[in-house]
Amino acid sequence: MNKVLAYLPIAQWLPGYQKTDATQDGLAAIIVTLMLIPQSLAYAMVAGLPPVYGLYASILPLVVYTLLGTSKTLSVGPVAVVALMTAETLNELYPLGSVEYIYGASILALLSGAVLLIMAVFRLGFLTHFISHPVLSGFMTASGILIIVSQSKHLLGVTSQGNNAVELLFSLFQQLNVTNLSTATIGIGSLLALIGSRLYLPRCLIKMGTPSRWSAQIVKLAPVFVMLLCIAIVSLFHLQTHGVRVVGIIPSGLPALSLPNINLHDIYTLLPAAILISLVGFVESASVGQTLAAKSNHKILPNQELIALSGANIASALSSGFPVTGGLSRSVVNFDAGASTPLAGTFTAIGISLTALYFTPLFESLPQSVLAAIIIVAVSSLIDFKAIFHVWKTSKSDGFSMSLTVLGVLLINVEIGIILGVISSIFLHIMRTSRPHIAVVGLLPNSQHFRNIDRYEVETCANIVTIRIDESLYFVNAQYLEDKIPQYIVDYPDAKHLILMCSGVNTVDVSALDSLKKIISDLKERGITVHLSEVKGPVMDILQHSHFIENLSGGVYIDQFTAYHSVKAICNH
Amino acid sequence: MNKVLAYLPIAQWLPGYQKTDATQDGLAAIIVTLMLIPQSLAYAMVAGLPPVYGLYASILPLVVYTLLGTSKTLSVGPVAVVALMTAETLNELYPLGSVEYIYGASILALLSGAVLLIMAVFRLGFLTHFISHPVLSGFMTASGILIIVSQSKHLLGVTSQGNNAVELLFSLFQQLNVTNLSTATIGIGSLLALIGSRLYLPRCLIKMGTPSRWSAQIVKLAPVFVMLLCIAIVSLFHLQTHGVRVVGIIPSGLPALSLPNINLHDIYTLLPAAILISLVGFVESASVGQTLAAKSNHKILPNQELIALSGANIASALSSGFPVTGGLSRSVVNFDAGASTPLAGTFTAIGISLTALYFTPLFESLPQSVLAAIIIVAVSSLIDFKAIFHVWKTSKSDGFSMSLTVLGVLLINVEIGIILGVISSIFLHIMRTSRPHIAVVGLLPNSQHFRNIDRYEVETCANIVTIRIDESLYFVNAQYLEDKIPQYIVDYPDAKHLILMCSGVNTVDVSALDSLKKIISDLKERGITVHLSEVKGPVMDILQHSHFIENLSGGVYIDQFTAYHSVKAICNH
Repeated sequence: MNKVLAYLPIAQWLPGYQKTDATQDGLAAIIVTLMLIPQSLAYAMVAGLPPVYGLYASILPLVVYTLLGTSKTLSVGPVAVVALMTAETLNELYPLGSVEYIYGASILALLSGAVLLIMAVFRLGFLTHFISHPVLSGFMTASGILIIVSQSKHLLGVTSQGNNAVELLFSLFQQLNVTNLSTATIGIGSLLALIGSRLYLPRCLIKMGTPSRWSAQIVKLAPVFVMLLCIAIVSLFHLQTHGVRVVGIIPSGLPALSLPNINLHDIYTLLPAAILISLVGFVESASVGQTLAAKSNHKILPNQELIALSGANIASALSSGFPVTGGLSRSVVNFDAGASTPLAGTFTAIGISLTALYFTPLFESLPQSVLAAIIIVAVSSLIDFKAIFHVWKTSKSDGFSMSLTVLGVLLINVEIGIILGVISSIFLHIMRTSRPHIAVVGLLPNSQHFRNIDRYEVETCANIVTIRIDESLYFVNAQYLEDKIPQYIVDYPDAKHLILMCSGVNTVDVSALDSLKKIISDLKERGITVHLSEVKGPVMDILQHSHFIENLSGGVYIDQFTAYHSVKAICNH
Repeated sequence: MNKVLAYLPIAQWLPGYQKTDATQDGLAAIIVTLMLIPQSLAYAMVAGLPPVYGLYASILPLVVYTLLGTSKTLSVGPVAVVALMTAETLNELYPLGSVEYIYGASILALLSGAVLLIMAVFRLGFLTHFISHPVLSGFMTASGILIIVSQSKHLLGVTSQGNNAVELLFSLFQQLNVTNLSTATIGIGSLLALIGSRLYLPRCLIKMGTPSRWSAQIVKLAPVFVMLLCIAIVSLFHLQTHGVRVVGIIPSGLPALSLPNINLHDIYTLLPAAILISLVGFVESASVGQTLAAKSNHKILPNQELIALSGANIASALSSGFPVTGGLSRSVVNFDAGASTPLAGTFTAIGISLTALYFTPLFESLPQSVLAAIIIVAVSSLIDFKAIFHVWKTSKSDGFSMSLTVLGVLLINVEIGIILGVISSIFLHIMRTSRPHIAVVGLLPNSQHFRNIDRYEVETCANIVTIRIDESLYFVNAQYLEDKIPQYIVDYPDAKHLILMCSGVNTVDVSALDSLKKIISDLKERGITVHLSEVKGPVMDILQHSHFIENLSGGVYIDQFTAYHSVKAICNH
């Protein structure tokens, strides 16, 4: 029983739940619900689904996360990047708006749940570490741009098409002359109102005497006000008849609970995307969770988070939803609004359920261009050009991987973008180790330290060459060592001893041992003895297991200073 | 003009060519030609081609290598592993024995030539370093086993089938009852004769007074004698009529020179295999070339070797051949027979041409089971179980990659085998760096050295914790550092200073910098200052470019001893 409870974090905190917690969670839930309604509808649109599916995906997953999650304030539901990845996957397989498309989204959520569960069981959360910060940051920026470009057609009421961001943009420009004026006016008007409220509203409110804490909340609710205003305008002036596309009739009520039927063919076609969605979703969720946890001084448990996200996705699939994860903007609102426990999520789910049950008729006249404006403003926070410049300045290889990710997302698709980013960053890291930095070193006077002879005035001995290799020795650089080390010796015609200083050698493998053996035997023929110094524990273990030490022509010394003096003594002997 | 000559190594050595060289090269060529005839026929059979194509692939490529190659004794032509890879690629696409199959082999040679040329132009030879020694060794062993298993059907005159070694073996056992007795007798007899001549002939010959140098050559020619003997037996007793399958009628003459027509579809289906064949072929050729060059004290130039192999493959395609590379056994024979320059190769090509022109009728009665026996004995030298045990003993991860390669080759196919090997060895190397060895260190009394406090009696100070991280800091281990370093500090409640000793940190990237910044700011809140010591030059450059130093709460010290004393002074201040 205790074992089961270990996987139900709610069992730990619920017994201590207090009235004040309930008040705080309830208040937070009201604010988050209001903010989530337009956002959920909008992200469903990003995913290529009818807007109401955004509400469906914002009910059960929140309840499940309340039971299983370890973050107090993470809010799980539809988020921009995951919605985009869902759309890109399904677009290639099913016609937009078809039953199969909608069904495919649920299958994708179910498969993501399964992938996350497998990751939890086999403790594969570390796989997300393969996505470097620059690649993730580039991916977010490019996804933000792609979402903005693809939503612009809804904003302007045109029908641009394309397989990537550039084609979409090009098609958009071609269609500018057939823009629906009413739609564009509402869309761009909403956009300006939302941007304006972000930039100026907080200051205005504070000037008007609103407490700063409240003003921040009110700004977050600006999309709700804009949405309601536009619904009113459209209804009043019957703008539907002027070509303004609206959300239309939404079936009231909650989704029927049933898991999608899944067959081998679905798994085959959707699993690769599900794996990427799970990885990206988990990275986003974990980083949001960790940031918020650090602020409120509690800890999140990565493996339990995998279980919680798995449950949330399966719950989403159960309620006809699409893949979900912990989102940044919704979680920040939840945190700022003072949520005290994960129960705030369940309260929010109740709020969304009430909306789905009773308020859907309200959204029938909601113009799609307003939702597009809300999305564009929301995802603009993903775009961070400054980070791109900063990364390029710090590291060319990180900058390269980041740019490749951005280009991949914009010119091909999001999956290829992230895959290119991960593979190139691993490849470049390996390439960096393939030609290790090698320095000939000498003794720094009046010390026990050895430094590069090219950079410092150091003491050397004509019969002894000391080479420091600043890298683990393994198959990728083994041949390079074999080529280079003898070349270094050529410059020292009186050399009788070579000391390899191994302070930077963290591991060694069979290929490198083969190469070292070859180097040692070649140098032996030329009358040069090879010694090792500063060999680390794990490396020494491998040398001993492989009987390498027995073939070594010289000795192994604990530190370079001892090595140098011992070998010098041999020379003078 | 000089620029062109730089790519024609023959221009350097031909002017100094002497009569004695010609004698040596001529003698070597006779021996190699005799040895190559059965081997070429046999490897064509491994490639799934009519035996005569083995002769075709052994003429022009040798001439081209004479012009372009930098090894004095490397012999280029059909080799076992490349023939096997050719067969596995074509088997999946075309029916065995069809015109398309034969034509496909030429296209594969042409594409390999193109891949090798591209590798030369863009200096991509380093890509072969991604194949670790254990993976290559496992690949060779498994390929040897696979060839033996697949040739056993010819040896016994049965028709076993299967998609991998296990299926082939299983099918072979099922068919044992329908073995053709005459075929099996000739096959197994030849096999025993060849094995016997390897094991006992040298000793016998030496006992009989043959000089040891000659006895080795005679043993190498054993396949020729066995072949001739069997041809005689089959002809004499008309064994073809008893179900012994023979090579059959071979068109006399040289192949017509023409490059295969190639279209986009061929490139699409054959390029991946051509890339793998080129990589494996180049690794084999380069390692054979390097080993022999070291013995005769000359140097081979890897990039020129790429050009030479590219030319050899294009020449093979031009003469209806299949992919070729520098082979171990043929090169060793060439070397042992005293070849003095690459002209020996051209002389060999003349010998093979004469064979193709005038002696093909001789092979009409050559039983396929003899060729199978020759192959089996030849490839048995590829199999090295001792190496597998040695690798496992030295390194679990190398052993794992090696075993995965072996299993991949035997259970799936050669391509998957080598890909699994390369990917797993890179993955395991990266995993090894994902949880770096971290040690808390203290000052070794009466020295300036700092060692692990768990292994040595060292001096420490309650206010100072020094942590040594034995790995480059990069995206794969950034999160691990973020999790672990604060945990180490918890054990030292009086800690006011943390010194990160960076002697094992060879590089640092943006992700790791992000994590370090987080660690530093978190520790700052807990009243702990972070210092760095022994930062290497390239790492220091990155720290400065990224303005990291400005955010560092403490100082940067050239060595740990200075850092320790400076920080101690701050504490006592």
